[in-house]
Formats: sequence, C-alpha cells, structure tokens
Amino acid sequence: MKTGTENVVRLTTERLQLHLRHTFTISRGSEDIAETVLLRLAAGGIDALGESAPVSRYDESPDLVASQLEKIALTEPALWRFDEALALLDDSMGARCALDLALHDLAGKRLGIPVYQLFGLDPSKALSTSFTIGIADIPTTLAKIEEARDFPILKVKVGTPQTIETLEAIRSTYRGIIRVDANEGWSAGDAVRMLHEMERFDIEFCEQPIEAGHPDQLRYVKERSKIPIVVDEDSVTSADLPALFGCVHGINIKLAKCGGLREALRMIHTARAMHLKIMVGCMIESSVLATAAAHITPLCDYADLDGPLLITDDPFSGVRYEGARLQLPDAPGLGVRPLGPTAVGGR
Amino acid sequence: MKTGTENVVRLTTERLQLHLRHTFTISRGSEDIAETVLLRLAAGGIDALGESAPVSRYDESPDLVASQLEKIALTEPALWRFDEALALLDDSMGARCALDLALHDLAGKRLGIPVYQLFGLDPSKALSTSFTIGIADIPTTLAKIEEARDFPILKVKVGTPQTIETLEAIRSTYRGIIRVDANEGWSAGDAVRMLHEMERFDIEFCEQPIEAGHPDQLRYVKERSKIPIVVDEDSVTSADLPALFGCVHGINIKLAKCGGLREALRMIHTARAMHLKIMVGCMIESSVLATAAAHITPLCDYADLDGPLLITDDPFSGVRYEGARLQLPDAPGLGVRPLGPTAVGGR
Repeated sequence: MKTGTENVVRLTTERLQLHLRHTFTISRGSEDIAETVLLRLAAGGIDALGESAPVSRYDESPDLVASQLEKIALTEPALWRFDEALALLDDSMGARCALDLALHDLAGKRLGIPVYQLFGLDPSKALSTSFTIGIADIPTTLAKIEEARDFPILKVKVGTPQTIETLEAIRSTYRGIIRVDANEGWSAGDAVRMLHEMERFDIEFCEQPIEAGHPDQLRYVKERSKIPIVVDEDSVTSADLPALFGCVHGINIKLAKCGGLREALRMIHTARAMHLKIMVGCMIESSVLATAAAHITPLCDYADLDGPLLITDDPFSGVRYEGARLQLPDAPGLGVRPLGPTAVGGR
Repeated sequence: MKTGTENVVRLTTERLQLHLRHTFTISRGSEDIAETVLLRLAAGGIDALGESAPVSRYDESPDLVASQLEKIALTEPALWRFDEALALLDDSMGARCALDLALHDLAGKRLGIPVYQLFGLDPSKALSTSFTIGIADIPTTLAKIEEARDFPILKVKVGTPQTIETLEAIRSTYRGIIRVDANEGWSAGDAVRMLHEMERFDIEFCEQPIEAGHPDQLRYVKERSKIPIVVDEDSVTSADLPALFGCVHGINIKLAKCGGLREALRMIHTARAMHLKIMVGCMIESSVLATAAAHITPLCDYADLDGPLLITDDPFSGVRYEGARLQLPDAPGLGVRPLGPTAVGGR
C-alpha cells in the first residue's frame, strides 16, 4: 500500500449549485440556492472526492476556496502525510476541508476500508439526525412541522420577536425532541429571558444564543438557564475550546467550519477531555460533506446532518437516512457515489 | 479487509524480565530489573504484539494486568472497533495499553501499512530521544555522562540534597541539552528555590517538580520559574488536562500510563488545543512499547524513549536509534520483530 513515487496528483474543482426545498432563513439572512465546491483528486488510478461549503460568516467564498485548491501541487508521499498536505492550505479552512475529505476518501479506497473503520469506529453507533426548521411565519412553520412529523428530533431556528409563539405552535402538534438555534441572535440578557420563557417547551438545548467571542457572557447565560448551552460560531477549531471551559455544556463541530475530519477529531478529543457534549452539524451541502461527517458520529452525542435532506438536487448518494437514523455506507473511503453521469456540474 | 465472522480471538500473555544496564534510581526508589507484560493477539493468521509496563505509582502490577488481559473474550468485529474492545478493560490502564498496541499492530498488518501511516504521519518528522541519567553519587554520575556523551539531550533525575552539585559537575563536562525530572520530589517552595538555582545550568525544562494533584501550586511554581514546567504524574489521561490550563508549559504522555495509542492521540489533541508542549516518554520497557510511542513522535515536541537503551536484554527490535534520532520501522503495524527464537519468555 505504500508508495514512493513522486507523481504529481491531479486536483480539479467544480461548483455544485444546490437548490433548497424551502427558502432557508436563520437569524442572519435567507437563501434559496447554496453553492459548494467539489474537489476531485485523482491518484494512482483512484478517484477521490472532497467538498467544501464555504461560509461567508467565516469570510470564505466558493471562489476563494476553488482558487486555493487549484494553486497547490501535491506529490504522492504527501497523500499519506495529512498534516503536511493540509499545511499547504493554511489560508483557507474551506479548501483544507475539501482536501482533508479527499485524502480520507483516497486512503480508505487504497486500503479497501470505509472511513469509520480507518478511525476504528463502530458503524452501529452512528447517530440519528435532527431535521432543521428555518425561520418562517407560523402557518408556514406548521406546514413544515407537518412534513417533518416523523422526525424524532427537530432543530428550530429562532431569533425573531415571534419565537415564543412559534415554539408554542410547534409544541401544540409535535411531541419529539426540540433543539433551538439562535445563531448569535440575542444579547446575554435577552438569552436569559428567552431561555427562561422556553423552559415550558421542553427544549433539549439552545445553540449559540449570543454573539461569538464572549465566553464570560456565555457563562452568565449558562449559570442562569436551565436549558443547556451548545456553541457553534464560538467553536470553530480545537484551539477555541479551552477558553470555553466552564462556560458551555457542549459544542457543535462542522467539517466545513473546522477544516475537515482531522481537525474534527482534534475537537472531539479536546471536548471530551473537557467533559463537553459534542454535536456534529452541517451546512447546506451535498452527500459528500454530510457522509464524511456521518462517519464520525459514533464519537459524538448529537447529529444535525440533514444537509442532503434540505436540497432537491444532491448529485451524490452516501449516508442513507433510515428515518432520522444515519446509515453509514460500507464502501471503501467515504462511500460516496455520483447519482448518474449528468448529475454533477453545470446545473 | 472487512470481516464479519465472529471467531474468538486468542490472547496470551508472557512476562518480560528486563535487566537494567545500571541500577535505576529516581526520587521515589531504585530498581535493577523491571517486569513488563507482553500480549500476543492471534487473529486470522496474523500475530500482533502489545506490551504493558505496569506502574506501581498508579496501583498497577504485572499480575493485575495479565489477569485482566486473560479474562476478556474478544470477537472479530471488535478488533476494528477500538473503543468497544478497550472498554472491556476499564479497570486497568496497563491492560488497555497492551490491547491497544496489539489492535494497532494487527490493523496495520492487515492493511499492510505501518502505524505512522495509519495515523497519517510523516516518519521523517520522528524526534530525537533524550537519554536518562538516574540518581547516583557524583563520580558514578560523571561516569554515566561519559558513556552518554554523544547524546545531544540528557534527562537528569533530580531530587536529592546533592542536586545542584550534581548538575554543576554534569555541566562542567556536557554541552548538550539538559532536562531535569524531580518526580514529585519537591514542595512548591523548594521547587521555586531549586529552579532558581538551576537557571545558570541552562535547563530546557523541569518535569513534575511537585506532588501531582495541586494545579494551583504548579501555577505558583510556573509563575516564579524561568525554567518551563512539564508535568508527568499530573497528566495521566486527557481528562486531567483542562484543570492544568495556565498552570504548566507542557505534558509528558506515556503509553503505559494513559492506556495506549488511542488515548495518547486524545491527549496530544487536547494539549495542542491548550497550546501546551508535548513530550512522549516511556517506562523501563522493551522495544514493543517504545516503538509504539516512537510512531507518534511526529505529533510531539520532545521524546524520552530510551527504555530499550537502558536494558541489556530487549527481546525485540523495532524503533532504531541513529544516535539519538528515532528511526521508525517501515514494516506493517508496529514493525516490531522478536530478536530470535529463544529471546522471549522464561528469562
């Protein structure tokens, strides 16, 4: 399996235009189409795939990510030396994410094992995902809840003045687990008041109540709220975690945000050492990214990997959804396949 | 490479009696022979090796470790599900260490790749090891320094009333890097005074100056010492690290202490997130344990892996020493081989 040749590896990128089933609104804004960057890495007759969902919140764009990926030259030994290869892309988390996924896909395909096995994980311990309900007026929200009624876990985006009425309406028809995500929408004082009002709706946890970068305010909220606090925008990479010690109950890890599986494992290990709960989340993304994230759910507590369910034109198949339960593919590498010869690119 | 059969795996243990080149004295006591537990794991025609060096400081013994290993029954799928297999041995860190090494050796052998490649590491980034000088009178110490004069890094065990005179004598003949290890031998006040006196000897860092379990006292010492503080007895597993935030400069990771490579990676990731320096160390142990530790040195800052150099009868070859520089074996798995048919057992 070892290789010593110095062949240059071919990297090509494509844009994926992913169309949302419903306009997706969170406290920061709305979107109907999401654009991600697909990476194809060809080495020694094996094609590997990676993907990045660049996030404007972190000053990244598809153009930036694609240009970063197109300018690097990788040679064979670096394909097994992950940190060395990823260090070529220090400027862009999104580009690192796409390359990290492709390197894991390639390694698994070369070794003939799925990524979960490369990590020594038990695929039967994969989690169930929540299904995300974006911000909308109450009748629209209730129509979405009706569509999602068989999902055992909902993640409800909040942050408007109608938050309490909306949750009241949802709870009147939905008995499953509800998580809320404020996406930095509140002040610390608002967060304490809102979370107190929400207690009667039996909320599992609240994601990122306040603007990132204020651990003392998170601690203030945590000490005054019965609803556990999970951060997302505050937990970009493992280096962010020590400052959160004692301030939160858990973190949300996203591959597109942290730079791929390798950094995600670092975050998982650091969070576990800090006795934090771990959620693995997603952006609007195809099955390439969501499947990579699904492979590490056996190490986590909560999954929010509904990206492929939110779009109408996923060009790939990978992780399958048995209801909400993630089924990891057994094929080597990420286990992702294109859904047909015309499925990728140009849409 | 995947297997679905439920064959029971055969685990057998042996004791290794390792004879020390010199009586080895640290602040806690002396020894001439060290006993470790070798684990042989046979599955699907492949023989894998693990080792544990049980440490009385952590209430472990060869008897305890061997009895734990002998009572578990492993079936095939668990050989790839590391956490599931290791959870069978929650009672003994030492037993977990031996099994963890054997699982990594087996996985690498099945996949045809060395452990460093399984971890995505660059073998050319392996570190140089220090060579340990135990506590002795000054003439004996100087004789040892003469033997070790070609080593670029020494780790000097300290903690006696003659510490300063001993270091003075060593520095009069040795120009390389000196680290000191007090093995919990001082009070916080003593530590501050001793480290202040040692500044003139250009000491790279001091290991475990005070009794483990007192992070506030470590912080007190750190704030008053120009010599960096690295903990060992205080950093058993990753769960110990968050409490050390701001109190130390680095940690010493030992496979025998933390329970193997999987936990060592968790410690490395957590320590990196905390901006701590990372040392990987050893006990008196054969090349099985020392080679496993050598495979992760590309992720670390300092190595103290001279275990095989301190004994006269290592039954295995694995990591090679090019002077002090660790050369990782390229053979699959740990890359450890017995040194001859009569080399193992019964001595």
